[in-house]
Amino acid sequence: MADLQIVEKIPLYEQLVNEMARQIAQGTFRPGERIPSVRRTSQQKNMSITTVLQAYQILEDRGVIEARPQSGYFVRAPQEMGSFPEPECSDPPIDPTHVNIGELAIRVVRDSANPNMVQFGAAIPDPELLPTRRLNRILAALARREDIPQYLCGVPEGLEELRIQTAQRMFSAGCMVTPDDLTITSGCVEALSLSLKAVCKPGDLVAIESPTYFVILQALEILGLQALEIPTHHRTGMSLEALRFALDHHPVRAVLVIPNFHNPLGSLMPVENKRELVEMLAGRHIPLIEDDIYGELYFEGQRPPAAKSFDKEGLVLYCSSYSKDISPSYRVGWVAAGRYKKQIEQIKMATNVGTALLPQMAIARFIASGGYDHLLRRIRRAYAQKMAQMSAAVLRYFPAGTRVTNPSGGFVLWVQLPENVDSLELYSLALKARINLAPGYIFSSTPRYSNFIRLNAAYMNEGSEKAILKLGSLVERLAEK
Amino acid sequence: MADLQIVEKIPLYEQLVNEMARQIAQGTFRPGERIPSVRRTSQQKNMSITTVLQAYQILEDRGVIEARPQSGYFVRAPQEMGSFPEPECSDPPIDPTHVNIGELAIRVVRDSANPNMVQFGAAIPDPELLPTRRLNRILAALARREDIPQYLCGVPEGLEELRIQTAQRMFSAGCMVTPDDLTITSGCVEALSLSLKAVCKPGDLVAIESPTYFVILQALEILGLQALEIPTHHRTGMSLEALRFALDHHPVRAVLVIPNFHNPLGSLMPVENKRELVEMLAGRHIPLIEDDIYGELYFEGQRPPAAKSFDKEGLVLYCSSYSKDISPSYRVGWVAAGRYKKQIEQIKMATNVGTALLPQMAIARFIASGGYDHLLRRIRRAYAQKMAQMSAAVLRYFPAGTRVTNPSGGFVLWVQLPENVDSLELYSLALKARINLAPGYIFSSTPRYSNFIRLNAAYMNEGSEKAILKLGSLVERLAEK
Repeated sequence: MADLQIVEKIPLYEQLVNEMARQIAQGTFRPGERIPSVRRTSQQKNMSITTVLQAYQILEDRGVIEARPQSGYFVRAPQEMGSFPEPECSDPPIDPTHVNIGELAIRVVRDSANPNMVQFGAAIPDPELLPTRRLNRILAALARREDIPQYLCGVPEGLEELRIQTAQRMFSAGCMVTPDDLTITSGCVEALSLSLKAVCKPGDLVAIESPTYFVILQALEILGLQALEIPTHHRTGMSLEALRFALDHHPVRAVLVIPNFHNPLGSLMPVENKRELVEMLAGRHIPLIEDDIYGELYFEGQRPPAAKSFDKEGLVLYCSSYSKDISPSYRVGWVAAGRYKKQIEQIKMATNVGTALLPQMAIARFIASGGYDHLLRRIRRAYAQKMAQMSAAVLRYFPAGTRVTNPSGGFVLWVQLPENVDSLELYSLALKARINLAPGYIFSSTPRYSNFIRLNAAYMNEGSEKAILKLGSLVERLAEK
Repeated sequence: MADLQIVEKIPLYEQLVNEMARQIAQGTFRPGERIPSVRRTSQQKNMSITTVLQAYQILEDRGVIEARPQSGYFVRAPQEMGSFPEPECSDPPIDPTHVNIGELAIRVVRDSANPNMVQFGAAIPDPELLPTRRLNRILAALARREDIPQYLCGVPEGLEELRIQTAQRMFSAGCMVTPDDLTITSGCVEALSLSLKAVCKPGDLVAIESPTYFVILQALEILGLQALEIPTHHRTGMSLEALRFALDHHPVRAVLVIPNFHNPLGSLMPVENKRELVEMLAGRHIPLIEDDIYGELYFEGQRPPAAKSFDKEGLVLYCSSYSKDISPSYRVGWVAAGRYKKQIEQIKMATNVGTALLPQMAIARFIASGGYDHLLRRIRRAYAQKMAQMSAAVLRYFPAGTRVTNPSGGFVLWVQLPENVDSLELYSLALKARINLAPGYIFSSTPRYSNFIRLNAAYMNEGSEKAILKLGSLVERLAEK
């Protein structure tokens, strides 16, 4: 309350001057734009015309705004116009000793929008491999139609046409689902988050892989759930022996796995393990949340089946999206939630009512118009090649003591650095060299992956060899400390 | 496990016949479409070619599919092709005695996509008043540009251009916020849901208005939060005396209000009450979540300020969206979360990473290209008129003992029916007459509004007088029972 009284002592017009100057400095009103009129500001702020005029006069005197006859007040261009700073790169480097995992993860993701960085950080697909032009043209054609009903917004389960296409796609993962079994979501993360809410109550224990995709850890934390990290093998994924032991000794409420081309491990759970996993959980009536976002990105042979394909009890909630092969920015995914479908719909409604309509229509139309299988074949070949290229470069340029996974799908590499190398220090040094990477810390709620990093191979090409060389020299320097 | 053994006894080919027939019956594969080839199905299902052929032969014999030389197997058109049933209307009417509030609410919302019903149910805007054509043209033009970066998907705070436009818009609500204060969300419901997660832990108590928007009740339930329903006045909204009492006696963790044109009440909290509310909570360090989605839809005078305009401590999380005036199906809203902004961003990332990019760009461009104020003036006039028209019709056709609110903004009417009329029975009868409405039950966790209904006036026009007449006669019939 003391603060409030101090504020009261500042004259009203000066308060307004400060507020407007802040708004202009921070870009709410930009150079050349008109600011609200004296009359309007007087109404909004409940100040007299005289007070507002006084404030505007001061701002004019300071060169912040200018009056134009008959038009009102406009923001003036700054006297010395420098070049715009690049917002993210100018941030101070991360301090390895004081870091919040959530903030670190968000920074890795946010930096993925910085075109001036080598994008080995977030697991984003190569834009060159996305059918953006064709997809956007389909969206444009749809948007020019006059008969798209606005009212379809209120359908939490999503567009039927897209659910039909998606049910057909799931056939390739060995899942016999119908369009009515599906709920469209705003991406795979939303599918996972809805699934966790559908099967867990706050305080519940969820068994996950260790390491695992950092957004899963964040989702658990935000929902008030406890994570039980189960050991994994870098080739075969979650250890079923360890899981069975955990189930015998802990009140596990749900299990969340990424059986196909795990992020960050790249592991592929063998078919027999998937069957065993599903049967083990069915016997205990424990739901399984399956993230299959990388399932279509196998490098050779045929599409590995989803764990969902062995689901006879409706206990598997299968989550995926079109973000890795069609468009990350359209934000369209889905969940086949089995017996939890009704709950998922209610939670979807209370989360954001439904997913934006036109992006759903465009993706449905894109798939229906053919060429999707061809696209997938092209993507698979490209990522197989990029992954091989990146592995080779890491082997060439990183110091002895480095280990690297050898995934048969997806597009991320999991790299174990010499034991004394701290991935956060490396991250911090790499940022200065404009290279983004994902430090091991964010893949576990413990610091056990402090000397691991995840590299996104999707952006690997001839030109980024240099970046791997640079990373290698940084690792070497840290290893010698 | 017994089930599994029984399943094993059914021959493999018969299992496949049943699965494929189910997929076709439920629309995964539709008449005229090709089903997966024998070879592909054999791989996916891990069955021999012979088994699959046997199954396909049976399906062909039954007339479900047909082989076409050189092309594969196709789904046949059903022999007798009737007209398609209308999916929602054919549902059995709600049984008033066995109802789950969440399911009921979702049904009211889902029925809003049924073009054959009079839409007095969900609070959806009149499509005729939305700038759909212009907005979609802008989207189409954007989608045809080649330089839209895909990588922008990973920005949880949303597009800067839209945050600038939105900060300017908030000026009209008396809020001096900058673009950096805002997080773009997938609609207002998402803004509310993120806000609840940011300020509450499971088990916490949240004070809300009684009655309130049903999705708020669902969001509380899903997040494991307790609702404390505070009495309201149909003109001035939440009773501050009651709230103060509640705060003195209960460990309230957050307060969630709709001060401007409350849904369903239509109430408008007086300016002095808003100031008092914000100061009362600031004194106790309790965050206020404000839903201002109807704030721009005032019928006369000037834009009522937001409670946020009195926020000096950064304790008010202001939520709104463009769903009532620009587009419900684009799913674009925002939250100005004050001191909780960082948490909101992390939660947004763990909820769905970010909001779809192109809809954000289109709305930013729409506002920047001018005419938004003109659009709002037109909408305000139209809803004022529709509301008056609906009120008059209710007064004319509903029996004595009915009471109705007289809101000065928004587009919903809250109607108190004679005491012995059950709104669920009315809802059920109205559905048979193809009229959708929102029964009072869904606006509280108690049955205290059993004889209330909410009517959406946005769809009111000359033609819908008849529907009000019909509703009136149904109410009369129920009142006489």
